[in-house]
Amino acid sequence: MKTVKNAVGRDIPTELEGRKLKPYKGLFKNPPRGRKAGGYFGYVKPGDKKLQPSLEDAISACGLKDGMTVSFHHHLRDGDYVVNMVMKTIAEMGFKNMVVAPSALFPCHEPLVELIDQGIIHSIEGSVNGPIGDAISHGRMKGLSILRSHGGRVRAIESGELKIDVAFVGAPTADDQGNCNGLHGKSACGFLGYPVADSFYARKVVAITDNLVDYPALPIQISADYVDYVVRVPSIGDNQKIVSGTTKIATDPQKTSIAQAALELMIHAGMVRNGMSYQAGAGGISLATTKFLGDYMKANNIVAAWMDGGVTEHLIDIYKNGNCKAILSGQSFDVASVQDMLTNPDHVAITPNYYANPWNKGCLVNILDTVVLGATEADIDFNINVNTHSDGRLLHGIGGHQDTAAGAELSIMMMPVFRKTNAIIRDRVTTVSAPSHSVDAIVTDYGIAINPARKDLLKKLKGTPLKLVDIKELRDIAYSEAGKPEEPEYLDRIVSAVQFRDGTYLDVIRQIKE
Amino acid sequence: MKTVKNAVGRDIPTELEGRKLKPYKGLFKNPPRGRKAGGYFGYVKPGDKKLQPSLEDAISACGLKDGMTVSFHHHLRDGDYVVNMVMKTIAEMGFKNMVVAPSALFPCHEPLVELIDQGIIHSIEGSVNGPIGDAISHGRMKGLSILRSHGGRVRAIESGELKIDVAFVGAPTADDQGNCNGLHGKSACGFLGYPVADSFYARKVVAITDNLVDYPALPIQISADYVDYVVRVPSIGDNQKIVSGTTKIATDPQKTSIAQAALELMIHAGMVRNGMSYQAGAGGISLATTKFLGDYMKANNIVAAWMDGGVTEHLIDIYKNGNCKAILSGQSFDVASVQDMLTNPDHVAITPNYYANPWNKGCLVNILDTVVLGATEADIDFNINVNTHSDGRLLHGIGGHQDTAAGAELSIMMMPVFRKTNAIIRDRVTTVSAPSHSVDAIVTDYGIAINPARKDLLKKLKGTPLKLVDIKELRDIAYSEAGKPEEPEYLDRIVSAVQFRDGTYLDVIRQIKE
Repeated sequence: MKTVKNAVGRDIPTELEGRKLKPYKGLFKNPPRGRKAGGYFGYVKPGDKKLQPSLEDAISACGLKDGMTVSFHHHLRDGDYVVNMVMKTIAEMGFKNMVVAPSALFPCHEPLVELIDQGIIHSIEGSVNGPIGDAISHGRMKGLSILRSHGGRVRAIESGELKIDVAFVGAPTADDQGNCNGLHGKSACGFLGYPVADSFYARKVVAITDNLVDYPALPIQISADYVDYVVRVPSIGDNQKIVSGTTKIATDPQKTSIAQAALELMIHAGMVRNGMSYQAGAGGISLATTKFLGDYMKANNIVAAWMDGGVTEHLIDIYKNGNCKAILSGQSFDVASVQDMLTNPDHVAITPNYYANPWNKGCLVNILDTVVLGATEADIDFNINVNTHSDGRLLHGIGGHQDTAAGAELSIMMMPVFRKTNAIIRDRVTTVSAPSHSVDAIVTDYGIAINPARKDLLKKLKGTPLKLVDIKELRDIAYSEAGKPEEPEYLDRIVSAVQFRDGTYLDVIRQIKE
Repeated sequence: MKTVKNAVGRDIPTELEGRKLKPYKGLFKNPPRGRKAGGYFGYVKPGDKKLQPSLEDAISACGLKDGMTVSFHHHLRDGDYVVNMVMKTIAEMGFKNMVVAPSALFPCHEPLVELIDQGIIHSIEGSVNGPIGDAISHGRMKGLSILRSHGGRVRAIESGELKIDVAFVGAPTADDQGNCNGLHGKSACGFLGYPVADSFYARKVVAITDNLVDYPALPIQISADYVDYVVRVPSIGDNQKIVSGTTKIATDPQKTSIAQAALELMIHAGMVRNGMSYQAGAGGISLATTKFLGDYMKANNIVAAWMDGGVTEHLIDIYKNGNCKAILSGQSFDVASVQDMLTNPDHVAITPNYYANPWNKGCLVNILDTVVLGATEADIDFNINVNTHSDGRLLHGIGGHQDTAAGAELSIMMMPVFRKTNAIIRDRVTTVSAPSHSVDAIVTDYGIAINPARKDLLKKLKGTPLKLVDIKELRDIAYSEAGKPEEPEYLDRIVSAVQFRDGTYLDVIRQIKE
């Protein structure tokens, strides 16, 4: 296999399963060419009906064929029923070799592993959290897994790199014309942002709802003029499970001390100020940072211009205290934030395109002051891993990690130096998920390492009480406390490729040797 | 010139100024082919600025060239300052042969006539109300005028038939990233629906605002990810002039009697019922019909599912009385309806694509029960003219007329049988703007004529107290009272072509002989 070393030192095959891969060259080194893909026309006449008696009827009406690409969104996260329901129906209808293009899959989607084993699912383009990622790591999927960030996914759809044949939109509320929203109904999950691009570019779009209401279903989030068919089902999911393991606030002292240190860094870097902007990742330490930041802003009468996210009750609290003028919601991370959208005109939905697409006329992450993010590993070059565990298993998606890291003025990665017998700060991350060029600081329980490329930041922080350390010292602590990492044993076969948000490739993930 | 007779009996050239014209073949006889056009990528990095010091700088930054197409919207109607401001700047910068693609031009845009005379404006694709239309009728414009409906315009943009190089968005409120809305600011004009398609498909997009606010400008109507540049100007228009001649309610007895008759027709046709939908055109008789309908619904406790428009205070009244569950706003026709959008969650914006594009996955007009519309002329075949006066002068646009007439279950055209010495009901309309196939009833001050193709409707109305008449009787009255119409004298040159919403051609307009 011919490979090329990319700008973070990883060997990227020039071609993989028929795809030509461009190696990652740096943060803004792969401009778009040509024009966006064109969407699909419809042709509907007065009297035509969109409502289908069953999911099977809707799938038939879409003209689904073997090998086609079907897409899903993950607003209901680990509480989603739609992916399993649709893929089961597709399997029962006898289709095979399907490409699944979710914004993300969760542990609840474990039933898909059987369809992978049976060859009904050929490949997955999208985040694979948990058991499906694990199955992919063990070589059970025939085709390739492609990992993209939120911004990278919409870029891929808009550019025609990811072609969706049928998009399935799980809709907490819909009408018979296909207007959908996630604000009302028993499965309310917030703004339906992820499927917006799918609805614009997919050949066919099916809305699946457990709350079919009289026309017009308001507000319009997915718009009827982009929806072909509507299906009513008993339940699309359990919104109580939106808050899952990765979206619960950290409370143990090790993690909260890291969160506190991240806040100190933000303060001394001058990023906590009137008119500031801020985003936190979904992890527990990130949520704790948000909480501490809110407390600090309240005590010091600081008012942010805006905060975005993954919106949680902690952001709502900051807003309600008067310490933030606007909340831009890419996704609701709990039911409280869904409810706030119903009545708060300053809590506004944004699409992944608006949020993070590097190939549009300006995305939100470009003007973000600070982002705080978690990681599974970091290395002494400041590369970050969020996808694999140190045993090489693919267990997590990228989310907005790459996008915010690349865009924000100050990107802070937070993690312990080691976890039990596993060195988190190490010579070389198992997988590069975010490149060193996008990482400004690594905050740990043993001190803060600043990327030496950020000379301006180092200068600004000189003389502050922050505990600044060399990243190599952190690695040394990790290795001395947890032992030097053993490289996982792999087979040659590449099972997954990690894309940078601009469509180039950061790394590949190989099949684990049993 | 080779011509083909279309389905309303008009001779359509097979080719005109390099365009191949398809003749109109019937209501749903020209399905889309292939895929929609692709939009344009951007490539913006952190630190890049969109705010330009002047309009000239923004135009330069867009790379404007001679012969390019620039687009505008008409939410401020006769109070708009943006079109004149931009075209004056383009003229001063020395560009020529420009194609202007507004959603509509108004009498306030008369200064453009000079630019037409000078060859700075080569042609206009969009509605031309008043003096510009008059100038076109007199042969003063070098190129062709193309008239399209609201749905037809967005169809032309999406399909790539109308290619926009630079879209100028007059924004009552904007931020420095290009988020725009029409709800706030001294020039508030409601939802900025018309430029949405322009922002999706134009090569470059410039937001022009007289109310630059801190980021984020909320709500987001035109989205920053589709905007290249932002310019601040002293004033984009006078929103008190949104209500102009064509959007004032009729009060004289002749017109109100027609409006009353239209309501009677709706009632006896069974269209005034719980769960109904309704739209009225912008004309005075249409507005009067809405008012009478509201009074009737209130007296009879009837609740509509939704009404759309051109929203006026009269629709708001119906909603406030509890006789309508939702208002879908394609455009605000007065300041009262702009203000209502600020606080009423059931008063929701819809784009022209959602409203009327015949080549999408289902537009609103397809599920509309009743529309009431005005006209300048109707003929005994039930064709309708809204574009020209009987002297052949092009003085009005199409708006949503064609779209709603084609989509609604009951399309009612309201007009007097004659105006002074002008027969309105006649053998042949001066220009076909809406084809007979889309017209169900013509309501006049001398009775109601039902299109004989609507046998079901004629049957339903049998035995009702409605004054049903043969359309030829109305023509006879018109000719006896106002005299038989004299055909205007034309030169051979075609100055304007009237498109049907599906891209075929209904008619052409010739230069008037002086």
